[in-house]
Amino acid sequence: MTRYDLLAFGENMIRLSTRNYERLEQAQTLDFRHGGTEANVAVALARLGYQTCWISRLANNPLGRKIAGELGQWGVDTSHVIWTDDGRVGLFFLEVGAPPRASAVLYDRRNSAMSQMTLEDFPWPLLAEARWLHLTGITAALSESCYGLVAESLRRAHELGLSVSFDVNYRARLWTPEQARAALEPLCREADVVIVTQSDAARVFGVQGDTPEEMLANLAGRFARRVVAMTLNAQGSVAYDKSSGRFFRAEPAPVVHTVDRIGTGDAFDAGFIAGCLEGNIARGLALGNALAALKMTIPGDYALVSRQEVEELLAGAAGGVNR
Amino acid sequence: MTRYDLLAFGENMIRLSTRNYERLEQAQTLDFRHGGTEANVAVALARLGYQTCWISRLANNPLGRKIAGELGQWGVDTSHVIWTDDGRVGLFFLEVGAPPRASAVLYDRRNSAMSQMTLEDFPWPLLAEARWLHLTGITAALSESCYGLVAESLRRAHELGLSVSFDVNYRARLWTPEQARAALEPLCREADVVIVTQSDAARVFGVQGDTPEEMLANLAGRFARRVVAMTLNAQGSVAYDKSSGRFFRAEPAPVVHTVDRIGTGDAFDAGFIAGCLEGNIARGLALGNALAALKMTIPGDYALVSRQEVEELLAGAAGGVNR
Amino acid sequence: MTRYDLLAFGENMIRLSTRNYERLEQAQTLDFRHGGTEANVAVALARLGYQTCWISRLANNPLGRKIAGELGQWGVDTSHVIWTDDGRVGLFFLEVGAPPRASAVLYDRRNSAMSQMTLEDFPWPLLAEARWLHLTGITAALSESCYGLVAESLRRAHELGLSVSFDVNYRARLWTPEQARAALEPLCREADVVIVTQSDAARVFGVQGDTPEEMLANLAGRFARRVVAMTLNAQGSVAYDKSSGRFFRAEPAPVVHTVDRIGTGDAFDAGFIAGCLEGNIARGLALGNALAALKMTIPGDYALVSRQEVEELLAGAAGGVNR
Amino acid sequence: MTRYDLLAFGENMIRLSTRNYERLEQAQTLDFRHGGTEANVAVALARLGYQTCWISRLANNPLGRKIAGELGQWGVDTSHVIWTDDGRVGLFFLEVGAPPRASAVLYDRRNSAMSQMTLEDFPWPLLAEARWLHLTGITAALSESCYGLVAESLRRAHELGLSVSFDVNYRARLWTPEQARAALEPLCREADVVIVTQSDAARVFGVQGDTPEEMLANLAGRFARRVVAMTLNAQGSVAYDKSSGRFFRAEPAPVVHTVDRIGTGDAFDAGFIAGCLEGNIARGLALGNALAALKMTIPGDYALVSRQEVEELLAGAAGGVNR
Amino acid sequence: MTRYDLLAFGENMIRLSTRNYERLEQAQTLDFRHGGTEANVAVALARLGYQTCWISRLANNPLGRKIAGELGQWGVDTSHVIWTDDGRVGLFFLEVGAPPRASAVLYDRRNSAMSQMTLEDFPWPLLAEARWLHLTGITAALSESCYGLVAESLRRAHELGLSVSFDVNYRARLWTPEQARAALEPLCREADVVIVTQSDAARVFGVQGDTPEEMLANLAGRFARRVVAMTLNAQGSVAYDKSSGRFFRAEPAPVVHTVDRIGTGDAFDAGFIAGCLEGNIARGLALGNALAALKMTIPGDYALVSRQEVEELLAGAAGGVNR
Amino acid sequence: MTRYDLLAFGENMIRLSTRNYERLEQAQTLDFRHGGTEANVAVALARLGYQTCWISRLANNPLGRKIAGELGQWGVDTSHVIWTDDGRVGLFFLEVGAPPRASAVLYDRRNSAMSQMTLEDFPWPLLAEARWLHLTGITAALSESCYGLVAESLRRAHELGLSVSFDVNYRARLWTPEQARAALEPLCREADVVIVTQSDAARVFGVQGDTPEEMLANLAGRFARRVVAMTLNAQGSVAYDKSSGRFFRAEPAPVVHTVDRIGTGDAFDAGFIAGCLEGNIARGLALGNALAALKMTIPGDYALVSRQEVEELLAGAAGGVNR
Repeated sequence: MTRYDLLAFGENMIRLSTRNYERLEQAQTLDFRHGGTEANVAVALARLGYQTCWISRLANNPLGRKIAGELGQWGVDTSHVIWTDDGRVGLFFLEVGAPPRASAVLYDRRNSAMSQMTLEDFPWPLLAEARWLHLTGITAALSESCYGLVAESLRRAHELGLSVSFDVNYRARLWTPEQARAALEPLCREADVVIVTQSDAARVFGVQGDTPEEMLANLAGRFARRVVAMTLNAQGSVAYDKSSGRFFRAEPAPVVHTVDRIGTGDAFDAGFIAGCLEGNIARGLALGNALAALKMTIPGDYALVSRQEVEELLAGAAGGVNR
Repeated sequence: MTRYDLLAFGENMIRLSTRNYERLEQAQTLDFRHGGTEANVAVALARLGYQTCWISRLANNPLGRKIAGELGQWGVDTSHVIWTDDGRVGLFFLEVGAPPRASAVLYDRRNSAMSQMTLEDFPWPLLAEARWLHLTGITAALSESCYGLVAESLRRAHELGLSVSFDVNYRARLWTPEQARAALEPLCREADVVIVTQSDAARVFGVQGDTPEEMLANLAGRFARRVVAMTLNAQGSVAYDKSSGRFFRAEPAPVVHTVDRIGTGDAFDAGFIAGCLEGNIARGLALGNALAALKMTIPGDYALVSRQEVEELLAGAAGGVNR
Repeated sequence: MTRYDLLAFGENMIRLSTRNYERLEQAQTLDFRHGGTEANVAVALARLGYQTCWISRLANNPLGRKIAGELGQWGVDTSHVIWTDDGRVGLFFLEVGAPPRASAVLYDRRNSAMSQMTLEDFPWPLLAEARWLHLTGITAALSESCYGLVAESLRRAHELGLSVSFDVNYRARLWTPEQARAALEPLCREADVVIVTQSDAARVFGVQGDTPEEMLANLAGRFARRVVAMTLNAQGSVAYDKSSGRFFRAEPAPVVHTVDRIGTGDAFDAGFIAGCLEGNIARGLALGNALAALKMTIPGDYALVSRQEVEELLAGAAGGVNR
Repeated sequence: MTRYDLLAFGENMIRLSTRNYERLEQAQTLDFRHGGTEANVAVALARLGYQTCWISRLANNPLGRKIAGELGQWGVDTSHVIWTDDGRVGLFFLEVGAPPRASAVLYDRRNSAMSQMTLEDFPWPLLAEARWLHLTGITAALSESCYGLVAESLRRAHELGLSVSFDVNYRARLWTPEQARAALEPLCREADVVIVTQSDAARVFGVQGDTPEEMLANLAGRFARRVVAMTLNAQGSVAYDKSSGRFFRAEPAPVVHTVDRIGTGDAFDAGFIAGCLEGNIARGLALGNALAALKMTIPGDYALVSRQEVEELLAGAAGGVNR
Repeated sequence: MTRYDLLAFGENMIRLSTRNYERLEQAQTLDFRHGGTEANVAVALARLGYQTCWISRLANNPLGRKIAGELGQWGVDTSHVIWTDDGRVGLFFLEVGAPPRASAVLYDRRNSAMSQMTLEDFPWPLLAEARWLHLTGITAALSESCYGLVAESLRRAHELGLSVSFDVNYRARLWTPEQARAALEPLCREADVVIVTQSDAARVFGVQGDTPEEMLANLAGRFARRVVAMTLNAQGSVAYDKSSGRFFRAEPAPVVHTVDRIGTGDAFDAGFIAGCLEGNIARGLALGNALAALKMTIPGDYALVSRQEVEELLAGAAGGVNR
Repeated sequence: MTRYDLLAFGENMIRLSTRNYERLEQAQTLDFRHGGTEANVAVALARLGYQTCWISRLANNPLGRKIAGELGQWGVDTSHVIWTDDGRVGLFFLEVGAPPRASAVLYDRRNSAMSQMTLEDFPWPLLAEARWLHLTGITAALSESCYGLVAESLRRAHELGLSVSFDVNYRARLWTPEQARAALEPLCREADVVIVTQSDAARVFGVQGDTPEEMLANLAGRFARRVVAMTLNAQGSVAYDKSSGRFFRAEPAPVVHTVDRIGTGDAFDAGFIAGCLEGNIARGLALGNALAALKMTIPGDYALVSRQEVEELLAGAAGGVNR
């Protein structure tokens, strides 16, 4: 019996976001939260009932302790976080927009404690106690040593028989598409499951195709040992299973009110991984779409959603008042 | 000359609702309001200019006094409320959702002062001073003694010549459809005006039909002395007048932005009763739809809307800025 | 070289607006901002990089100083404001509605310091240092002396070779259509650029036509030395250039989420004037539509938008998250 | 049996106050309340269980309705308010300070509906249904017609046998001490009970004395048919009963945390009048001091305090937690 | 090696408190927190670095999950909580006062899930894994079954060699002094450490004495196997060690600004227990006073204070700014 | 005639502070302001009517623009700020405490745009247009290049005949006392006016003495060309004029309610410099004390105080309500 269903390895940042659609230059108050793509996945899976553990390096100050404590509140094991008295907690300002004005992220994450994590820091024995490892392209972009950690943890996970999912998660404010492509291609080749947005597939990897399925086939020709999944913005998601050669597609929820779009892709990842853990890719897409839609209605990065709520949505519930 | 156009008899609860679509587990602040279906109707009618009085039993503590005082602010006579030093004020937590996540009500209303009201408590002489009595299925569900009070007040009102409206208002978190059906059928038979949502008609009374009108005809065959009205979710409302055998239908407002959906049905009731008080069922549907649409834009349970605003909406106003 | 690209002459008021769609009667907190159509234009142009100056008369108290200070923050020169120890700062309460409930403005602006400004107060020498003067029908409605100031500044501006734009900006709570028509016709005849909404064109000037272009042609027959522009509510805007006899039309942004609709027309004015300053009417319409759409997403009167953001919208950006 | 224990005649204003000690120039949000010295007295007495009625003239807009509705919530009869479609509701901005920075009031109350009230407006028959009339120097300062109303209501009240209390309530931002003295002396002579702060006694009436009692004796020589009361800032209050020639003094509460000092003097008035209504001047001072101290801890103008809370304070309670 | 330094057994309630000293009747927003005397002790000790576990019974709804999740955030083990789908989470409204107005607690805690806990529910094997058990008189007051649980857990703890602390914590809104005395005397006799406030010692147990030490001696004659501690309101605390016959006294922090007084006594308990766990009663008093003073400055029930902060206070730190 | 009364050279940071005394780990919202010791001085002097200019280097992003824009609102010239597209805006988290819990500053200011400013960046010609230059030990601590800029600007200012004030402003979280002493001694020797707190004088420079005056004499023996001023915590301030050999002392305001203590020392500096600009050291101390006391009552770093308010305080005003 393994102890953890999922290990998520990456960075969490303090998130300072505007309220009521104010611009940063006019705001006098900010919401004070935190998040990071890998922890977001770990929280969502924990809320569904999985045992998850988040691996990271954190500055031992109130900001770092806030992050670890609140992840604990949501059910994620943070007892293996590496603490350091040096270094800072990365952060970002989020100016929440409304169409046609985009939300804008102002990163201030350089030199974070996480970005300085080394091979010696990583709690390697944990890999032997888990079924699945989740990695993303953001950690790969943080620093050379982080890139090394992602590559090495991917390699060791395979040796130990864990499944590894890799979300490309391209961030234009961290690196150029060319840099990302060069760095991420080897990782995507080795991952069992690769998840990428349609726009990142085109922008980073130059993948083309008249249909999502055609793009997916191209991706599968280059990447992933087992499965490639692609999210299609407000049009659902598709996946391709290399062993069976089958395509899967799932429709998105029909009406989604946007409360907070940050973390939506991570919620999809969590649902898709849950499906994979159950050995059911079609269900993974459905769970992913449902979690993403529900996440969209919740402030903050985390998909604070119960399994029952996901099931009700998949069964056709659509809002209203439960009373 | 009667003193009151309407008596509304029922319970008000403290309402603790989340802000900014937060989940209860992440919230640190709650909006602190109150409401209850019958008082909601009384407030809406008072704002339209009718003399209304709310009959209930309240704990004599700051929560009870808050409820009575603020109903007074909105023009409802609360001088006949029964005060008790024992008992509590019922309450509910409202987790406000956004599609596709439903709003969720967590009731904590057992053993409220109202649920322990007895026949001796009721201010029976008031019935002689009013034109109309409004009752609902929620009060009937609170306790045996409350059920007795609803039945008895309905009986006496008829003896005294008042019109009685009855809104079925089924609440799945209070009782099962079967329980509700058994309890409410005799009341619906005796009421002059029965109001029910399309989904409650199906769920509680098993009413079927290919069209709303067909369902309405079935309902009218079983219930109400004079009129049955049915609301059709975002598709307006219909009514059937047993004396004339005529059907009426009214379209909803074309665009409605949802600020707070609690109390929308009660706002419809108020508009529909206003039409009935004017002897005009078609206008009742129109007023009901208009009040419901305007209520949807106002935080809290109460339809704080003037007659002028209702008339402007019926005349085609549609938002924008009046300046 | 002129010192100012634009002079804007008019009144700013304190703006006290409800939060979360509350009605004034239930609110306990109000947002405390300010604005005025001419200053709104000056702010928007300043954010685009133009040198703008706001001419007005203000009470020398914390409210007046707040207005001048914050306009300075947004880049508008307020060093020529006329200060007075007498008089008050006008204000308005804004009850923010949601469809189908209109937002409602309750003006309390009588006897403001601005309304008592005289010909002697105006800093006439400034006209010689500017390229453009912006005036509106609101200032003309404030008082007889203000009407005189608008007329005289228009006259002198022409003598000095400035372009003058005039936005009709009819306000039903200030005067009747008949009063406005009588007062504004002479001003509209003399202005170089006249801007008017489609509904004001019909309501105030009785302009009719089967198409916006037909209405525009009628307007151009009566008003403006050079250009007439007309905004079409959610359907974009049109303009007619008298010298070339050409019509221009621009589509609105496809999806616009309404955060705050006050100041939208002023944002259009700013964009349109920017186009005119560049000698390009078609671009003026496009900039005006883009600024109006972006303003709609920003709380308060001011279009706090950079030139880059406008260009990105015109290039097809549509929301999402920039990160 | 009289219907009202007290009639209070005067003006209420909208009160827009800063939060968290912000300066007006930096604030973006204001608390939105209302108050006025006479209504404050009426509310405090209503909360103690007396029947009170507030006489005033209000603009029939959301601000006026808010004032009347919320006074109703606190138990004051507002059914005799004179409503007008013209005119405005006066208002003031309150910049809340902390020592050594004073709180600052910025009045904007000219031309209010109340200031234009005439002798014809006043509901004279009400005087025959009341025991006591409360007037203040603020109403006398509002306008000539208001001064006339104060004088006339004082005269008629005496004819009808009501007791009349008059609080000098000098406001430096309304008139000079000389103006106030000339206007208020005749009113103070005729009132049964005159209440004045020690500093106003000196500043307005030039009253001197080595002790409060000496000053009181001087005041009593010039003013009031029956009783003069004087408040001594944080040092309690004194009163002199002309019929018995006795002096009374009461100590203030030992520790008072200042939450909101507006309305403190009015709370004293209410307590003192309550004592007089019970025929006990010493108790009036004690009640006044207790109410003033409790008011100091409550946000807003109104002393929302129960009789039980006053009695507990007089019996020695001093804060802590009741649980 | 034991697994837990401390087990705390008791109830947590949702705590709905007013903001800015508002009265409940005027509030529209409440702070939404939770707490309970035993969990408060467990949190404070966890923050100091001890392994603590909280034993309770909770309704499995968002309120119960919020309590358990957030206790987890603060480092308390909640994995042994008994969950039930029936029952409610108790709650209280806290109206925060300021001197001379007391804060007022309005309990609504009857029929909570915890009050219905039975002997079968309790996780008895945990006792074998802990060094210390903390109990209070509040749990004893909740219900007969809760009283039985307190008595039985005290008995078994002794058998297993745990130390047991018992805080009398009399609550006038739960029972009378006579009821409390009868119920608590046997428990206080058996506990190793008894903690009581000076006023409860007098009010509940009728203990008298000219000095705190004299009262303490009387208490020690009746109660506790080893130590009695008594808190003296703003005057520090005293303790008596029965084995050595020595008295201890500690002064309070010289200046304490009251932000939130709820939980202050519990913070003292935690510090005192920490001292006892270190075998140093004098230090227990010092730690208790320091924690209580620091708690007073923190909103909510929990003493979120690090060991370093306590040590700095004991070393003489006194506020200011650390930068 | 010089253009500027004062140039202030230094860094501003974003300031993220907790509300209602929350701990960072429990907060969900932060106040979003900014400040820096030199800009704080410039703002305070600008509010008193002096022409001030702030020299700094800022990242050209919304945070940098917010700082510059809002300083402009308060009257400080920011047109000479050096803008860079690289680099970040430094920031700090402020956890506001209450006695005995200290407020805690968590700096995150490394690698800010300002810390990378070079000699080439500084707008040297400005020195010729000013009367006074204000520098502090914080800028000297930021980086080597900043230290060089402080030293060089001090040198050049003397050449050009400006007076230079230097506030030691030791920050324990930036460097050790030994580091600060070594770096600051040469600067303090050359400055015309040196300002230091009593505790920094002891901690950094090892200055001892039985009285403040004795310490001051020691300081004057080592530092400053003309004047040394020392602030004595809540006990006022002292100064020594080397040319006259005279000591000056000023008492603090008697009662000061602490709203926000950040910036208090800077407010003193501004007042003291104002006195020096008037050639009156005694008045400088008085103005400094008054400004510091008033600043204490205002949220944020800036002393938003008018000259009139300072004069009223010096004339004996002490709080209350101005109305």
